Amino acid sequence: MEFTVEQIAQVIGGKIQGDASIKISKLAKIQEGDSNSLAFLSNPKYENYIYTTRAGAVIVKNDFIPKSEVKAALIFVEDPYTCFTALLEQYHKTMLWSRQGVEDPCYIGKNSTIGDNHYRAAFSYIGNNCTLGTNVKIFPHATIGDNVSIGNNVIIYAGVKICADTVIGNHVTIQAGAVIGSDGFGFAPQPDGSYKSIPQVGNVILGNHVDIGANTVIDRATMGSTVIEDGVKLDNLVQIAHNVKIGQNTVIASQAGVSGSTEVGKQCMIGGQVGFSGHIKLADRTSIAAQSGIMSSVTTEGAKLFGSPAFDARSYLKSYTVFRKLPQLMRTIEELEEKIISLSSEVK
Amino acid sequence: MEFTVEQIAQVIGGKIQGDASIKISKLAKIQEGDSNSLAFLSNPKYENYIYTTRAGAVIVKNDFIPKSEVKAALIFVEDPYTCFTALLEQYHKTMLWSRQGVEDPCYIGKNSTIGDNHYRAAFSYIGNNCTLGTNVKIFPHATIGDNVSIGNNVIIYAGVKICADTVIGNHVTIQAGAVIGSDGFGFAPQPDGSYKSIPQVGNVILGNHVDIGANTVIDRATMGSTVIEDGVKLDNLVQIAHNVKIGQNTVIASQAGVSGSTEVGKQCMIGGQVGFSGHIKLADRTSIAAQSGIMSSVTTEGAKLFGSPAFDARSYLKSYTVFRKLPQLMRTIEELEEKIISLSSEVK
Amino acid sequence: MEFTVEQIAQVIGGKIQGDASIKISKLAKIQEGDSNSLAFLSNPKYENYIYTTRAGAVIVKNDFIPKSEVKAALIFVEDPYTCFTALLEQYHKTMLWSRQGVEDPCYIGKNSTIGDNHYRAAFSYIGNNCTLGTNVKIFPHATIGDNVSIGNNVIIYAGVKICADTVIGNHVTIQAGAVIGSDGFGFAPQPDGSYKSIPQVGNVILGNHVDIGANTVIDRATMGSTVIEDGVKLDNLVQIAHNVKIGQNTVIASQAGVSGSTEVGKQCMIGGQVGFSGHIKLADRTSIAAQSGIMSSVTTEGAKLFGSPAFDARSYLKSYTVFRKLPQLMRTIEELEEKIISLSSEVK
Repeated sequence: MEFTVEQIAQVIGGKIQGDASIKISKLAKIQEGDSNSLAFLSNPKYENYIYTTRAGAVIVKNDFIPKSEVKAALIFVEDPYTCFTALLEQYHKTMLWSRQGVEDPCYIGKNSTIGDNHYRAAFSYIGNNCTLGTNVKIFPHATIGDNVSIGNNVIIYAGVKICADTVIGNHVTIQAGAVIGSDGFGFAPQPDGSYKSIPQVGNVILGNHVDIGANTVIDRATMGSTVIEDGVKLDNLVQIAHNVKIGQNTVIASQAGVSGSTEVGKQCMIGGQVGFSGHIKLADRTSIAAQSGIMSSVTTEGAKLFGSPAFDARSYLKSYTVFRKLPQLMRTIEELEEKIISLSSEVK
Repeated sequence: MEFTVEQIAQVIGGKIQGDASIKISKLAKIQEGDSNSLAFLSNPKYENYIYTTRAGAVIVKNDFIPKSEVKAALIFVEDPYTCFTALLEQYHKTMLWSRQGVEDPCYIGKNSTIGDNHYRAAFSYIGNNCTLGTNVKIFPHATIGDNVSIGNNVIIYAGVKICADTVIGNHVTIQAGAVIGSDGFGFAPQPDGSYKSIPQVGNVILGNHVDIGANTVIDRATMGSTVIEDGVKLDNLVQIAHNVKIGQNTVIASQAGVSGSTEVGKQCMIGGQVGFSGHIKLADRTSIAAQSGIMSSVTTEGAKLFGSPAFDARSYLKSYTVFRKLPQLMRTIEELEEKIISLSSEVK
Repeated sequence: MEFTVEQIAQVIGGKIQGDASIKISKLAKIQEGDSNSLAFLSNPKYENYIYTTRAGAVIVKNDFIPKSEVKAALIFVEDPYTCFTALLEQYHKTMLWSRQGVEDPCYIGKNSTIGDNHYRAAFSYIGNNCTLGTNVKIFPHATIGDNVSIGNNVIIYAGVKICADTVIGNHVTIQAGAVIGSDGFGFAPQPDGSYKSIPQVGNVILGNHVDIGANTVIDRATMGSTVIEDGVKLDNLVQIAHNVKIGQNTVIASQAGVSGSTEVGKQCMIGGQVGFSGHIKLADRTSIAAQSGIMSSVTTEGAKLFGSPAFDARSYLKSYTVFRKLPQLMRTIEELEEKIISLSSEVK
């Protein structure tokens, strides 16, 4: 899509200085971009860039007075940053949701329905008995298994696998390569040392406004459901085991893993590469520092934890400060021992 | 599939109380489910649920006497839990292995054969010179590269990539998105600071009764084979590097990683997010706690390890208990120093 | 492909002892292989294998004198290892790059072009406005989104997802299941406790001679580019967040994760399962031990780090040595306390 500087100035209510007919097709940082790019200058620290920028147009503050020649067209507004991000959002939404139609070949099984404004890419696969809402966008090589239910305004990127029986709400985005509903890791030990797999016949439920990262995996429940509540955001390469429950608006960073049947509370912040034992509960609003290991339930709301096994984050850092000095501390203790020995001999 | 309560009672040899004609199509927990669900009550702790359950029928113990009205049909047996899991297993197997036929379009290369009772989903891909046994189920977007050999009773879920030359035994299940046989990570440093890739011409061998988790990766050997022995169970997002060997019936939890040429013994239990250095050996029946790092060989069978670098798990926890008190310990030492100084001055 | 022992001896300039007409189709270790395999003997430690090997031919040193009967044909050269790896490399390249043509069905969008000698597997997908160079090999179920630019001599393995706007250089290999250009993990907290996604409109740039591991994920930038410079090698299951920059020839082992906007220097060696905080910088030639956590910028070039949070690796190991003795150290302190008490009483 292409807009003139004039059209953009109208949308954001700005005044133009320079060539109003310049064509803009991209948004860029002021230090990057080319003649078709629109940039912004908000922080005075970056002012130097405006005299050398290759961007075709720059949004600036109403009170901005150039100190030397500026080649780019300028659009003057009250708050350049807010205007720019509003444009960005608008542009992104338009691009994202305008995708429509069915590419050939793609596959849809028996008794499956999909609502209006859908996009089904070539090589996308929908199984039997699926119900998909309106405005669902399915990218290439996405698999949707049998008996899956999906709400409205859902984006399923390339190569996502949504296994049978999964239930997905509205306004959900699933990044490329994620797996929703693989079998839980459940095996019963046998007398001969081997393991027999326990059938995993439950499913996965994703609430509304859930975002799932690339190559993240969420296992189906053994029985019942693995539940990801409304507003949960999972980063890339996260592992959610069977029968786990993640509470509303909890955010989990990349490569963290939650073991089976654990319940994470609402509004928690889980750092990258954090691990959880199975069958424990985490209170609401818990913050966990990256790489920590949570080995038992956390019952106090709002706790901040660090370490493996994790405890209070500030206490962990205090202990760790001493840990760094341990060789020195050991020498101190040895010296004390010697002093006491010599002192004892003096006393006797 | 649908069964009456009467049919189910016959299969598990139980006596019915209530409506024997109720139709059952699902298995559920007693606190979940609907009128088409069959549940069970084994643990007396859950007895309350039987008076409120929405399940159509519940399997109970022969000696169960309701304390108030129960709406569900009851099936009385000696051991409800065993009966229920037997039904669950039967149901799951029937569902899983009944999938048959070839969906269109799917691809099969030259000189490749596949045995009876196979399922090949739309967009599944089989390369050249492959031999696949009977009862092989291939889900959408699975890729099977050239020269791959697969045994009988194997399930390959959506988007699995089995790279060229891989050998797979019988009774193997590979969850969605797993990669078997990617190139090992081998690069030779060059004088100019760059790296030259070392050709990886070996393969991967999976034994019988092996289970591989979703998005797990197993690299092919540089030469020879990366070997996953019979009965090994790998969870999701596990990394197995080139030339690794995992011994019989070893279980590896999610997000653990084994570096190149390391040999893990038989019957080991490896926790989540554990890491292994390359070129080391782990004795049989070793247990490793989650997030531990194994940096050298473990020669004693049956050891339990924790920490990074890992050592005896009980010793690690004892050290960690003191670690938590380190700030306090440091103060104690400082006090001792002061006391000794004052004591010395008194003595002199 | 098949060669006689005579042909191979000619290529590597060796003298034959035994049957020069034996047909070779594989390269193998001396303790593995069959009658069509070529092996080598370089290290005298492995000499025993030459008397029992099933390989059809073995490359040996000019001065090798068998101590008993050898069934395999022998090819005598100055340096068996170098000759063997040269053959290996040649063989591997020939196999890899000989793949050519277009399998049916595959998809290519509007205004997209691809150079000579390409391979496009069945079910491979190329979007609109893409430019792909010569000698590009695209395996099954690979997705290439809109506006992607790819150089020459690039291999894209099965199920790789290259999202819209990605720019890829020459001599790049991407292993199966990797995701390049998924949305960055950026969410703005809202007053009601929910999060609103921040549009991610940047892209990913991969330089020349870059290797990307299986199921690894590289997020696109919020604005601008996530940059992987020339010669970078990423192992499997690695996470690279939005706006990250990885410097030339840096090597990152499996399951490591780099958080948003962090800049990793050139020629760094990053161990497996290492984690990085966001918005920090790592100096050139830094080495980081496996499982370490980098929580602040590292400004000294060539540092070696360990721990979480990481510090000097040798210091970490010294502290860790004392950590292992902490329970004993605590008892020593308690004894010192008692001695001082008794000493004090004696003095008074």
